[in-house]
Amino acid sequence: MSVRSGIDDVLAIIHDVVEKIPFNKVLGLAVESLDLDRPSVKLEMRQELIGNFIRGSLHGGVISSTLDFMGGLVAFLSVLKNLEGQPPALMAARFAKIGTIDLRIDYLRPGIGRHFIATGYVLRTGKKVAVTRMELNNEQRELIAVGTGAYMIA
Amino acid sequence: MSVRSGIDDVLAIIHDVVEKIPFNKVLGLAVESLDLDRPSVKLEMRQELIGNFIRGSLHGGVISSTLDFMGGLVAFLSVLKNLEGQPPALMAARFAKIGTIDLRIDYLRPGIGRHFIATGYVLRTGKKVAVTRMELNNEQRELIAVGTGAYMIA
Amino acid sequence: MSVRSGIDDVLAIIHDVVEKIPFNKVLGLAVESLDLDRPSVKLEMRQELIGNFIRGSLHGGVISSTLDFMGGLVAFLSVLKNLEGQPPALMAARFAKIGTIDLRIDYLRPGIGRHFIATGYVLRTGKKVAVTRMELNNEQRELIAVGTGAYMIA
Amino acid sequence: MSVRSGIDDVLAIIHDVVEKIPFNKVLGLAVESLDLDRPSVKLEMRQELIGNFIRGSLHGGVISSTLDFMGGLVAFLSVLKNLEGQPPALMAARFAKIGTIDLRIDYLRPGIGRHFIATGYVLRTGKKVAVTRMELNNEQRELIAVGTGAYMIA
Repeated sequence: MSVRSGIDDVLAIIHDVVEKIPFNKVLGLAVESLDLDRPSVKLEMRQELIGNFIRGSLHGGVISSTLDFMGGLVAFLSVLKNLEGQPPALMAARFAKIGTIDLRIDYLRPGIGRHFIATGYVLRTGKKVAVTRMELNNEQRELIAVGTGAYMIA
Repeated sequence: MSVRSGIDDVLAIIHDVVEKIPFNKVLGLAVESLDLDRPSVKLEMRQELIGNFIRGSLHGGVISSTLDFMGGLVAFLSVLKNLEGQPPALMAARFAKIGTIDLRIDYLRPGIGRHFIATGYVLRTGKKVAVTRMELNNEQRELIAVGTGAYMIA
Repeated sequence: MSVRSGIDDVLAIIHDVVEKIPFNKVLGLAVESLDLDRPSVKLEMRQELIGNFIRGSLHGGVISSTLDFMGGLVAFLSVLKNLEGQPPALMAARFAKIGTIDLRIDYLRPGIGRHFIATGYVLRTGKKVAVTRMELNNEQRELIAVGTGAYMIA
Repeated sequence: MSVRSGIDDVLAIIHDVVEKIPFNKVLGLAVESLDLDRPSVKLEMRQELIGNFIRGSLHGGVISSTLDFMGGLVAFLSVLKNLEGQPPALMAARFAKIGTIDLRIDYLRPGIGRHFIATGYVLRTGKKVAVTRMELNNEQRELIAVGTGAYMIA
């Protein structure tokens, strides 16, 4: 089959893996889209995710967890584009190598909503490091938090 | 009653509150010490906290969640010192007002261990903002990650 | 006079002040636009601004200096919008109060070019803190660096 | 001669290079110590370095410039230790390869003083990336600012 189907095969694997990562299950992260340029994941509000019970808002750590995960996913997808035509096994092997070097999160509004969508994009992918930006919005498209991360990709 | 017992009363409340915050329960955060200058919390390794199942290491989000929480706790305790002699209710009210402005996490080593200890300290407490540093070590005192955060305190 | 001319008066003062700040003169920062939503400053390449003489590229500190300044300017302009109709003196007084709490810079490409344009925008302006994003491009619109900053505004 | 003199030769070169980097000359950075574990540079207050002329304090960019430079120096010295016994030319070549990936600066107090000392240390040196911490104190040992940076080292 074609190169493109190679990427699709990998994406199917990734879709599966993402939701099986134990702590992603705790958070309840569900893949919305694995669009190579603008993937997104969804997070349903649940009582366990609360950090401030006076406000009923998300724990800051739920936000940083989701954005860190999104940054790693974005970094991986940016590498995947460059690997078009390589065997799926090689592409999948790159996923396990992605590691966060560092992360900044800016908390802009209390994490209040019924559900939240995290997205992200790559600012720059080098040979060894990718720099990504991520954001979390609630279902009313209010910007809750943004992040910037550096990820080791090789 | 004395001023000091005022702080002790508040600390007893805080100890209780910390472990009742829903997402702290998910993480399994347990207060080790509410020492005003160097508090610490403990996190037991559990299967649900895994982010990379090849390595069996903590999800980056578990680390950022723990360090964000620790930063907020450190910021609060720094305010508490300045409130000595105030009524406990006023001191407790300050706790709910603490909010993370932003956070940087540096991931230094894979989060591998049987348990982890997070500690932190204040770099500077101003009238409105406290800047804190946090770190996470495993039971072998290997430094897993560090963080720096800015917290709104008033 | 109208409210709007109040803002224009302040902007004329700011334009002047920006270029008189001693270290801005060292950098050679020149105001391109004080557009309230998307101001920009220009930096000409000069031999004194070099950090790596093998590459002939800008010192990282020239980049962080320019982006820090831009973040403060963006934060100020976001406050200014909210002050429409206030006396110019009050608006100008706010400028001196702007202070950087913290700053993240991501260096994406070597700072090579004939001149550079820094721009920025506000992510969120609260009562006390504004969070801003900044970027530096060269004359070929290559993205050299980006930044995120938290600024005290009151 | 011995391995040690290899390092000393390189340090003599570095000492020279540091003060010849054009923008370091603009800042007036002078090497205080190239101690491998805790190097330091000195910055004299001068009128050109001012950012806020009401306060007479350092421009935030002077602080970020100095701390970024210090982080790169610390990262380099951490590599140098691992290169003991290698030819000086190889060691020196590594210096030119050091590049800042990203940087966080926390501004704790206005940059007021007669002179300032920047120091730093490595949190972790990996194969490709070093993570460093830096700080700036004035001559009264007041902590003006701290930073954390990730540096590409290979």
